[in-house]
Amino acid sequence: MKKYEQMTKEELSALHEALQKRFDEIKAQGLHLDMSRGKPGTDQLDLSMGMMDVLNSGEDLRCETGVDCRNYGVIDGIPEAKRLLGAMSEVPPDNIIIYGNSSLNVMFDSIARSMTHGVCGETPWCRLDKVKFLCPVPGYDRHFKITEFFGIEMINIPMAEDGPDMDMVEELVSTDPAIKGIWCVPKYSNPQGYTYSKETVERFARLKPAAKDFRIYWDNAYSIHHLYDDNQDFLVEILGECERAGNPDIVYKFTSTSKVSFPGSGIAAVAASQRNLEDFRTYMRIQTIGHDKLNQLRHVCFFKNLDGLHEHMRKHASLIRPKFELVLGTLDQELSGLGIGDWTRPHGGYFISFDSLDGCAKAIVSRAKEAGVVMTGAGATYPYGKDPHDSNIRIAPTFPTLEELSKAAEIFVLCVKLVSAEKYLDMMK
Amino acid sequence: MKKYEQMTKEELSALHEALQKRFDEIKAQGLHLDMSRGKPGTDQLDLSMGMMDVLNSGEDLRCETGVDCRNYGVIDGIPEAKRLLGAMSEVPPDNIIIYGNSSLNVMFDSIARSMTHGVCGETPWCRLDKVKFLCPVPGYDRHFKITEFFGIEMINIPMAEDGPDMDMVEELVSTDPAIKGIWCVPKYSNPQGYTYSKETVERFARLKPAAKDFRIYWDNAYSIHHLYDDNQDFLVEILGECERAGNPDIVYKFTSTSKVSFPGSGIAAVAASQRNLEDFRTYMRIQTIGHDKLNQLRHVCFFKNLDGLHEHMRKHASLIRPKFELVLGTLDQELSGLGIGDWTRPHGGYFISFDSLDGCAKAIVSRAKEAGVVMTGAGATYPYGKDPHDSNIRIAPTFPTLEELSKAAEIFVLCVKLVSAEKYLDMMK
Repeated sequence: MKKYEQMTKEELSALHEALQKRFDEIKAQGLHLDMSRGKPGTDQLDLSMGMMDVLNSGEDLRCETGVDCRNYGVIDGIPEAKRLLGAMSEVPPDNIIIYGNSSLNVMFDSIARSMTHGVCGETPWCRLDKVKFLCPVPGYDRHFKITEFFGIEMINIPMAEDGPDMDMVEELVSTDPAIKGIWCVPKYSNPQGYTYSKETVERFARLKPAAKDFRIYWDNAYSIHHLYDDNQDFLVEILGECERAGNPDIVYKFTSTSKVSFPGSGIAAVAASQRNLEDFRTYMRIQTIGHDKLNQLRHVCFFKNLDGLHEHMRKHASLIRPKFELVLGTLDQELSGLGIGDWTRPHGGYFISFDSLDGCAKAIVSRAKEAGVVMTGAGATYPYGKDPHDSNIRIAPTFPTLEELSKAAEIFVLCVKLVSAEKYLDMMK
Repeated sequence: MKKYEQMTKEELSALHEALQKRFDEIKAQGLHLDMSRGKPGTDQLDLSMGMMDVLNSGEDLRCETGVDCRNYGVIDGIPEAKRLLGAMSEVPPDNIIIYGNSSLNVMFDSIARSMTHGVCGETPWCRLDKVKFLCPVPGYDRHFKITEFFGIEMINIPMAEDGPDMDMVEELVSTDPAIKGIWCVPKYSNPQGYTYSKETVERFARLKPAAKDFRIYWDNAYSIHHLYDDNQDFLVEILGECERAGNPDIVYKFTSTSKVSFPGSGIAAVAASQRNLEDFRTYMRIQTIGHDKLNQLRHVCFFKNLDGLHEHMRKHASLIRPKFELVLGTLDQELSGLGIGDWTRPHGGYFISFDSLDGCAKAIVSRAKEAGVVMTGAGATYPYGKDPHDSNIRIAPTFPTLEELSKAAEIFVLCVKLVSAEKYLDMMK
């Protein structure tokens, strides 16, 4: 394989013509394929169908303390659900609050609460001139949308394989009291699939923020979402690490069963220090009478314990591993050595991150759409939708069938080649 | 029966001694009874057990548009759930957004949204010096807690049998731009069980607020919660009335199935104008990926349509009607003609409102607690927990069994007599 940058104008022109021909053929097929969102496939949802049967009209629907889960009461979760999600979060049940169907909603509410009521008695953010958040990039678009929605200024922090640039994080957090938080997806990160190293977590736990109300928003969305049995990433449990570092209140840890049971019908949880949890509860007690306890009970009855969760996740892995491998195989085979893109090889999570030549991502996504493949919008992985290099593209391989994915991956690499060839041809003009 | 105020000191002393003796006997029994919250009884929850069976692993869990309810997607509710709650709310499905498990949570979020983002483009309330809400009293404690939590000043509006004092509402709303809302439970109101008259609703729809972002918080919690087949209250549908009055954006109408299916595991909805719904959606799209569609589908499969809901509510009525009648019977028999209390006779809803002699409510609730009966805290039905007359007590008859309720009602009237006798004896000192 010859690198594109080493090709002559004539070689590139010939290549471009062939690629364009192929593109036109595919476009004529009128395909509708979707690699845009981290949605489980239908076969994955089928894995949890037993959950529909565990609570039936013959069951006793009381939790272990005797509370009738069908009625009002229990603001922060039934004990057995706290145990299950505590085990999943690697913290004691006492450090857990169980929420409704969406951890994103809990993160949103945490920002909303901080805006109107402040964090643990500190000044509400809506009364401050400026509030800033650090955003490791590329990252999760919905995190960035929340902070943008509340007018919070976002600062990009480069990601490496071992996590965010901690020199930069430490410098900024320790000197600027307007910095109130950082968004983290610490394990199988969105979109790169990177897992923060031991040193990174230790440095997070030892941060000395200028702002008393600085919090780490630790979105552990993929804590048990491994692709392999034997090749798993390990993440140091941050709540314990923060406690040991004498910094127990610095982190909110979020999790949910959205990609374990059913997205939208799962249960979410926060793990945090008692002081933080009491701050959360003060708000919750006014906000609601309680979350859906029957759904909590349903999850406990179905998964039983951490072993049950792990066993279930192995079934998920067996369905999505071939999809990751198919995409990675296509990228390897079609793009290796061409010098027109790099990609990550995650051991878990829901995404592969692709970096094109600078200034090509938007064009690639646009071409893919033209050929019938919807990708996550280019730029979405950066605050304000602005990728400074216009190079990052998030690939979500889980939702399409293998057959669809095979076609979608083919189209994607074709578009990468086409746009890259155009870039070099443009440079020769 | 002789009125207490007409009794001589000797008569009152003898009466007080007999009442105190009976009180001591009951206290010695160490009872634990609860008439404090509007919770359905266990037998009422049993009515919805079929709901646990309607979605099983053999079912197709797609909604009518083909969307898989087990996966992400559909921000504002599946069409069949919009139809069901639209019918319950007497508005077209297009005017409905389906939420999660709690309408209280939606009301809270509406206030939170108004604080940080404002209403339909108006100035966010957190940037205003003063925000005020009108509160018809007595009213629902959890409404008042929300406005108090956000530092909103609450102004009491007296309730009558046909609704709030509309002269006062019109005068205040039309002159004070700091008044941004009013809390209403328009049908079988909490705690009095009153239903707003046609004229009251018409005057609400024709309000001319000084503030563009004034909204009526119309919590129609008991819209189909009748006690009788033949003696039902009728409430004019406000959304249509506001439209006809050229005031389509002035109202948010809330409802839920909390006291239809399972409290905490029901579904909630807002009915409003398209402009207001779009304002809600702008926030929702950032706050969540979507609510629990399986639970929406579960409700639709179980209730099917409005007829199904009404049929189900008749079963509820047959269980709680005897409870209301037992309490009312005890009040009539034990307190009529004594001049020491008045009470309401609702045709639906969850509460009976009792007014004692001025300055006696706290003492009555305290005595009842001493004798083993928990009542809603005196004062709870007023903003800031401050009942200016210390006279209103909310009676919630649904949760105890008939046997428990019989005992609880007996104790309650005993405490009313005891405290009232003490009041008159004190006045003679």
